[in-house]
Amino acid sequence: MAQIRAGLVGVTGYTGMELVRLLENHPVINLVAVTSRSDAGKKVRDIYPFMQGFPTGDLVITVPDAAALAKACDVVFLAVPHGVAMEMAAAFRAEGVAIIDLSADFRLRDVAVFQEWYKTEHAEPGLLQEAVYGLPELYADKIATAGLVANPGCYPTASILALAPALKNGFIDPDGIVIDAKSGTTGAGRKAVVGSLYCEVADSFKAYNLTKHRHTPEIEQELSLAAGKAVTLSFNAHLLPVNRGILATIYTQLKGGVSFDAVYDAYVAAYEPHPFVRVLPKGALPELRNVRGTMFCDIAMAHDPRTGRLIFVSAIDNMCRGASGQAIANANLMHGLPLETGLMLAPMVP
Amino acid sequence: MAQIRAGLVGVTGYTGMELVRLLENHPVINLVAVTSRSDAGKKVRDIYPFMQGFPTGDLVITVPDAAALAKACDVVFLAVPHGVAMEMAAAFRAEGVAIIDLSADFRLRDVAVFQEWYKTEHAEPGLLQEAVYGLPELYADKIATAGLVANPGCYPTASILALAPALKNGFIDPDGIVIDAKSGTTGAGRKAVVGSLYCEVADSFKAYNLTKHRHTPEIEQELSLAAGKAVTLSFNAHLLPVNRGILATIYTQLKGGVSFDAVYDAYVAAYEPHPFVRVLPKGALPELRNVRGTMFCDIAMAHDPRTGRLIFVSAIDNMCRGASGQAIANANLMHGLPLETGLMLAPMVP
Amino acid sequence: MAQIRAGLVGVTGYTGMELVRLLENHPVINLVAVTSRSDAGKKVRDIYPFMQGFPTGDLVITVPDAAALAKACDVVFLAVPHGVAMEMAAAFRAEGVAIIDLSADFRLRDVAVFQEWYKTEHAEPGLLQEAVYGLPELYADKIATAGLVANPGCYPTASILALAPALKNGFIDPDGIVIDAKSGTTGAGRKAVVGSLYCEVADSFKAYNLTKHRHTPEIEQELSLAAGKAVTLSFNAHLLPVNRGILATIYTQLKGGVSFDAVYDAYVAAYEPHPFVRVLPKGALPELRNVRGTMFCDIAMAHDPRTGRLIFVSAIDNMCRGASGQAIANANLMHGLPLETGLMLAPMVP
Amino acid sequence: MAQIRAGLVGVTGYTGMELVRLLENHPVINLVAVTSRSDAGKKVRDIYPFMQGFPTGDLVITVPDAAALAKACDVVFLAVPHGVAMEMAAAFRAEGVAIIDLSADFRLRDVAVFQEWYKTEHAEPGLLQEAVYGLPELYADKIATAGLVANPGCYPTASILALAPALKNGFIDPDGIVIDAKSGTTGAGRKAVVGSLYCEVADSFKAYNLTKHRHTPEIEQELSLAAGKAVTLSFNAHLLPVNRGILATIYTQLKGGVSFDAVYDAYVAAYEPHPFVRVLPKGALPELRNVRGTMFCDIAMAHDPRTGRLIFVSAIDNMCRGASGQAIANANLMHGLPLETGLMLAPMVP
Repeated sequence: MAQIRAGLVGVTGYTGMELVRLLENHPVINLVAVTSRSDAGKKVRDIYPFMQGFPTGDLVITVPDAAALAKACDVVFLAVPHGVAMEMAAAFRAEGVAIIDLSADFRLRDVAVFQEWYKTEHAEPGLLQEAVYGLPELYADKIATAGLVANPGCYPTASILALAPALKNGFIDPDGIVIDAKSGTTGAGRKAVVGSLYCEVADSFKAYNLTKHRHTPEIEQELSLAAGKAVTLSFNAHLLPVNRGILATIYTQLKGGVSFDAVYDAYVAAYEPHPFVRVLPKGALPELRNVRGTMFCDIAMAHDPRTGRLIFVSAIDNMCRGASGQAIANANLMHGLPLETGLMLAPMVP
Repeated sequence: MAQIRAGLVGVTGYTGMELVRLLENHPVINLVAVTSRSDAGKKVRDIYPFMQGFPTGDLVITVPDAAALAKACDVVFLAVPHGVAMEMAAAFRAEGVAIIDLSADFRLRDVAVFQEWYKTEHAEPGLLQEAVYGLPELYADKIATAGLVANPGCYPTASILALAPALKNGFIDPDGIVIDAKSGTTGAGRKAVVGSLYCEVADSFKAYNLTKHRHTPEIEQELSLAAGKAVTLSFNAHLLPVNRGILATIYTQLKGGVSFDAVYDAYVAAYEPHPFVRVLPKGALPELRNVRGTMFCDIAMAHDPRTGRLIFVSAIDNMCRGASGQAIANANLMHGLPLETGLMLAPMVP
Repeated sequence: MAQIRAGLVGVTGYTGMELVRLLENHPVINLVAVTSRSDAGKKVRDIYPFMQGFPTGDLVITVPDAAALAKACDVVFLAVPHGVAMEMAAAFRAEGVAIIDLSADFRLRDVAVFQEWYKTEHAEPGLLQEAVYGLPELYADKIATAGLVANPGCYPTASILALAPALKNGFIDPDGIVIDAKSGTTGAGRKAVVGSLYCEVADSFKAYNLTKHRHTPEIEQELSLAAGKAVTLSFNAHLLPVNRGILATIYTQLKGGVSFDAVYDAYVAAYEPHPFVRVLPKGALPELRNVRGTMFCDIAMAHDPRTGRLIFVSAIDNMCRGASGQAIANANLMHGLPLETGLMLAPMVP
Repeated sequence: MAQIRAGLVGVTGYTGMELVRLLENHPVINLVAVTSRSDAGKKVRDIYPFMQGFPTGDLVITVPDAAALAKACDVVFLAVPHGVAMEMAAAFRAEGVAIIDLSADFRLRDVAVFQEWYKTEHAEPGLLQEAVYGLPELYADKIATAGLVANPGCYPTASILALAPALKNGFIDPDGIVIDAKSGTTGAGRKAVVGSLYCEVADSFKAYNLTKHRHTPEIEQELSLAAGKAVTLSFNAHLLPVNRGILATIYTQLKGGVSFDAVYDAYVAAYEPHPFVRVLPKGALPELRNVRGTMFCDIAMAHDPRTGRLIFVSAIDNMCRGASGQAIANANLMHGLPLETGLMLAPMVP
């Protein structure tokens, strides 16, 4: 099969690191260029000694250069902070390169909403119209023909997959939803800050950014589309002393006349064609370790007749499914490959 | 000051272990007898090498014997499983010994509720009437004269302290409350089961017992009293890969016309006389490490105008505040000592 | 390519779990039978929910039956305790099935040494003669034609690979060697014992079995062969609060007249044909995370002119390289496949 | 009792944090001044929310000013980096303030050795003569009259206490000693660097600074004094994924004619007057959790007749016994208080 040449802008963060790991195992997409302003000139194995012995380990890191990457690559992954990504994306699109952007820059369809939550002007509102939201279970067809894919956030991936079928089918009240989400520390990025030091995170746990997390509008955007009406919900995040993983516990109200079994059966049916979403057997509950390092989104649900609550629990690996692995899944679709290509990974347990 | 002689029934579990640690530092209450069927004949330091060098380390463990303990002790802590505790409590009460029961056996005032949630007959419904619920901030006066104190559960301690003032003052809707609670693994006890092995818990996270946790009726009982009407809520638990600590994120609906500042000020006022409850500065959020090894319950709140949600976050150490430390606080009150005696511990951070 | 049918006796332990994970990704060897006395009748996904969605997840667990497995399988992995393995191996060999034994039963060539360290009679001294020690870098040729492979212990794998070239070349004094090894907690197995509970291991560290660890004679056996003379050394183990990995720090005395560069170059040369051993660049040191989930043995060395010490550090994943992955590597060799088949895995970092 | 007023220069690092915790519980020494250039003007509870509710939490942080501190304090703890400490110490000594320096600046008696290992000029060689090495078990008398105490390093504390009696008594060969030490991550300090991030340390383990650790000359200095001859040894450090604790496994050669029992008995006798050193029962081994948060140094030993090795294992809390707690113990001695004052803490297990 013809090999696909991939570039990675921003190799030094955790999502860049995960792209390196995952693409090493990909049978078709090959990493041919990686960039970093701070580490240009070094080999990948100099900064990532775990890549010694793999071809990618010997790649020389370069400074990002849109024209050069455009020549060398069929697809480019942008693993740079929001704000930076939008300008780079424009440069690449001008060269005709297919882009998968792992930042938040192209996820929100409404520029005003973006500017309200991110407190910054959007430099490329035109590109926003072109961008496709890269959640394969919802938008596989559009992704397949897209030139610019906005890779979903980690929390939104776990939240949207858990709630979309229930809202689409009208099983639950679209008002009053609470998402209580817990993330591993890779979610905080690889920046050297005191708050992310081992001794500040280990053996502890906390909530953060209550009521203000920027993934909120992204979740509301997609769930409003699923519900066919505006959904406003409470999304809140916590920091877990683990490297990877997101587990979201989601509290909804089951509508009168809807049975738990009907919901469960609808979920099984909805995700039957989607191998990366695993609806767990009734009574089972997700655990982070069962999805670690993989593309799976494990979903369970429980009904509480005392309160009428229908509770969803969903778990993903924030680095793989919630970022880099999903980016590769999108690249697969954009190049006509089966979604699972190179990504059907069994988790390492324990 | 006259020393108080304490006995501990059930030294081998985590709450027993914590009682040993805390009583070693207590200036008035001395541990004079510890029991365990499986380890009788050994010294405490044989099973707990960390107690070498302390007087308690040289105590010889005995088999539990109500008559003998009654003679030797002014107060006895029961750190045995529910079901076992109720029968022991009866034996001790017959001997006139003051009892602090760390099990669930005397927490629920309504026998029928106990039997529904614990799926077992209550052997001592009479004692249930005598028992006082040992949450010092709510019941200090009754505890001071009690012969049998039902030490609260860990989750209820964190949940009730966070919600009682809001319900008492009518600030929030008593319906629709969601408590999303996360606990360290000591909460699972010290029984040798595969699910509690290091390699099954580390680097993972999960929900458990969704909609069915036995601490639910205990929380509802006390919050109904606070609200002056029946409160039915959704309480759900998760297992954290840390040794100690509970953090509860609690979702409520702020009533119309109530301002966030009014709620905040009421909490500051309500807990001003109670040094073990720390209402955090506005904007700050609890972290498990800030309460580890201590009696503190750290409480914060945040308001989300978009959804009307008033979110409470409370954190305690499940072993100290949520069990053994609270038991000692109750013993302090029962013996006319200041609540804080031996318990004003600064946390070890990190 | 013709598929190879594999059986796994003892699916419920950590090495069984790891074999399931690794064989799921193997392109040629397929798991067709898994056994467990305690879980027979269940599907693999019932006990390992992380395998939902994979063909192996639907395999039904059976009771071990040598005759049935002999018919169904080309090769059988024994992941059962020592003592049990030797009798099973005999039964399988009688049926002509190729065996890879992950226990210690066939690792020591000298029955007397086995009996001294394991305090038990060896039931199959005859099979011991037939067994090949399954360290591919040392015995690939013999493994290729073996019917019974004794899969090396985890500590011996890390220790022997680090020291064999130095001893073979006479670079270091064969007397006085100290191996200070540290292992993740999967090394303690999946038995429900208090000492392996999360709360007994987390946030702690200890040495265990000082001077008496049963991997000592296995290491001495192979290093004596490398040195061409009897090697007696001090091997000591510690328990790390991590799931996986062994890091051994090995203290030797560099012989007079031997330069550090000569040793380093000899290691590079010795392991150049062996892709699973990575001699790190000078100055770099192994980290467990760089080998996690992989077949790599990362080796570094440092010379201390003040003391004459030549220090080796080697790191492996005790579950993959130190047990199940190495077992599959041996199966590859036994069936004429390239060593790396299905095993060239990039580590998941972080 | 007359209260002693203490100052703390450098409150923002981990040793400063630990001094705050420990002095809060001290019955005689009160923290009256804390300094930090970066956080001056804030209250202690602003940077350490865990101190809310304690008097120290309300202390206002100031910029360091020797003259002001000299007036306000009877003793000053220097918790600043080496190099900075030596100049501050001189300023304070000029004002007549008693100093306990937690840096390395005054630990090495020989200026040349200091300059060789620390690659910097020593600005105050005169003060070096005045300084007393603050290991209470060895130098209690000198500490009691000292004006400047050099608080020992964490690794040296664990190493010297384990080896001094054996060397003093001539039980072991002073040549060829190997110290393989493992430390929790607080040992790396609170600086924001990528290598200390949670996701870089968790679930991993590594050696660092092999053959070059700066605590080596400090250990050799004190052990040479104990042995009565120059001791050159191999000291090497590793990084554990835990917050606190050092465990050192120390390999020595038992001299001919010396029995293990004689060594053991000599250790029991040597440390009988020293309550902070616990010689464990024969067969027991130290665990980090047994000393966490305490002043204990737990010591065990094992003899291997096969190799003649006498192995010592010692464990301390690097933050408490290895730094801040030991500093307070020294302050106790300098002010005529019993060594244990405010420091007889039972560990929190688990």
